[in-house]
Amino acid sequence: MLDTVIIGAGPAGMAAGIYAARAELSHLVLECGLMSGGQIINTSEVDNYPGLKGIGGFELAMKFREHCDECNVQFRDGKVTKVEKTEDGFVVELENGESVSTKTVLFATGAKHRKLEVPGEEEFAGGGVSYCATCDGAFFRGKEVAVVGGGDVAIEDALFLARICKKVYLVHRRDEFRAAKTLVNRLRACENVEFVLKATPVRIEGQGKVEHLVVKSETEERALEVSGVFVAVGMLPNTELLNGLVSLNEAGYVIAGEDCKTDVPGIFAAGDLRTKHLRQVVTAAADGATAIYEIEAFLNQQ
Amino acid sequence: MLDTVIIGAGPAGMAAGIYAARAELSHLVLECGLMSGGQIINTSEVDNYPGLKGIGGFELAMKFREHCDECNVQFRDGKVTKVEKTEDGFVVELENGESVSTKTVLFATGAKHRKLEVPGEEEFAGGGVSYCATCDGAFFRGKEVAVVGGGDVAIEDALFLARICKKVYLVHRRDEFRAAKTLVNRLRACENVEFVLKATPVRIEGQGKVEHLVVKSETEERALEVSGVFVAVGMLPNTELLNGLVSLNEAGYVIAGEDCKTDVPGIFAAGDLRTKHLRQVVTAAADGATAIYEIEAFLNQQ
Repeated sequence: MLDTVIIGAGPAGMAAGIYAARAELSHLVLECGLMSGGQIINTSEVDNYPGLKGIGGFELAMKFREHCDECNVQFRDGKVTKVEKTEDGFVVELENGESVSTKTVLFATGAKHRKLEVPGEEEFAGGGVSYCATCDGAFFRGKEVAVVGGGDVAIEDALFLARICKKVYLVHRRDEFRAAKTLVNRLRACENVEFVLKATPVRIEGQGKVEHLVVKSETEERALEVSGVFVAVGMLPNTELLNGLVSLNEAGYVIAGEDCKTDVPGIFAAGDLRTKHLRQVVTAAADGATAIYEIEAFLNQQ
Repeated sequence: MLDTVIIGAGPAGMAAGIYAARAELSHLVLECGLMSGGQIINTSEVDNYPGLKGIGGFELAMKFREHCDECNVQFRDGKVTKVEKTEDGFVVELENGESVSTKTVLFATGAKHRKLEVPGEEEFAGGGVSYCATCDGAFFRGKEVAVVGGGDVAIEDALFLARICKKVYLVHRRDEFRAAKTLVNRLRACENVEFVLKATPVRIEGQGKVEHLVVKSETEERALEVSGVFVAVGMLPNTELLNGLVSLNEAGYVIAGEDCKTDVPGIFAAGDLRTKHLRQVVTAAADGATAIYEIEAFLNQQ
């Protein structure tokens, strides 16, 4: 029976692995991708993980993994199919039929950005198409960009980019916003922002780099000349396994505070999959550290 | 009038600087030490900042500072003497008589560990005497160590070290504990832990490295043969400037959650000085990022 099983090997899961290994907790980090790293593997450059300026996402993932290996963090490949409560802990079942018994489970399965699902989006992902203005905005200083979406995040992203970029198009399929009115009003006051409403993205075009976002309104198509497209149409937390096991909010995020505790004793959640405001590499890594600290406290009280 | 003034240039303040600069907020990081870095400057090795394994504390501070300089973070030397609320923001007064007007203030002044104040403590600080078991425990694998203190942190540190070290002495001046009973009972059950109660540290001895912790009980002195002394007698948050300005808890920490908001709109607190469970470089850096995100949201709502 292990002290903890960490499900997911992105920044949160690997940081948790480092802290678990250093604390000599018996542990296992389960990863289901081809390699460790999570979302950052597909990020061309991560410029805001403090201490490692302008590093490639892939390279940053490797640095985390090297750190894990140095600390003797135990990894195993395997897709988890089910986590079940037992009398004295949990059983984690894997796709290959194996199972692991553990006193605690730390979910660090992350989230993925909802996509536009239009031609060009995948081709330019990480090279002109971005899902995170806080992460990538600074690479578009002085340029023209489009933000797609109508929620708080979209408007905040547009406000953020309006300070940095020459021009920002805010593309939204309706002419009303889910976002807070104060945010929208503030955005309307920005001289370098153009609202493109009742418009839906159709495709992203360019020769080697993003040159146009083509949007369609009721009557016409229009090609916005931009070098960056910021997609802010929501996230999908990877919490399928947790459905029915712990409380999730309406959007599917695990309800857990800074201490990473879910409402089921022994089940913890670290990183992008839990309710929090800012989802970044550094906040995910901090979660991993905190979760292991809380798991130690939990084990001490058994 | 600046968007934000960040007081303190440790991991929290520098991370906040990076996020503020990337967000193109007008800002200033005020540092009052001789150099940037905060507590880590005096840490021989930081082994748990994910992605930068086994780096010296000084070197890690320099990496944060380089990252700041790359992002064009604005620093100014200056000890803050007072922060005052004005009609439209705050005025930050400096020792040299200058003052800075700002819409928001982010306190990132950190905390310091309470010391034993015995001979040898300063001499061996960072080289055998440690104030953080989570940080430094792994360097004492298989060795004999002492933990000094009687609160939750001391007992948790001793439990943590008991898994890693050959033997752990728990030195406490009384024979009762402020720590939770379950923790103390659990520690009593560890075979490699010896309780040294009603005993006060007198001095730390050694030739070039720690060899003994000498403790005094009512009747005698005793030299514990240890290569590490973990001091867990509390922390002192650097919150003098905040006294009377925002709500502090009994121990002097700023009452602020994960969002780094104090109970005064426009005043934020990031890093070791706020109420939180785990105080590490990575959790401080995450706070810096989150605080700037919340400051942007605050400014957007003005």
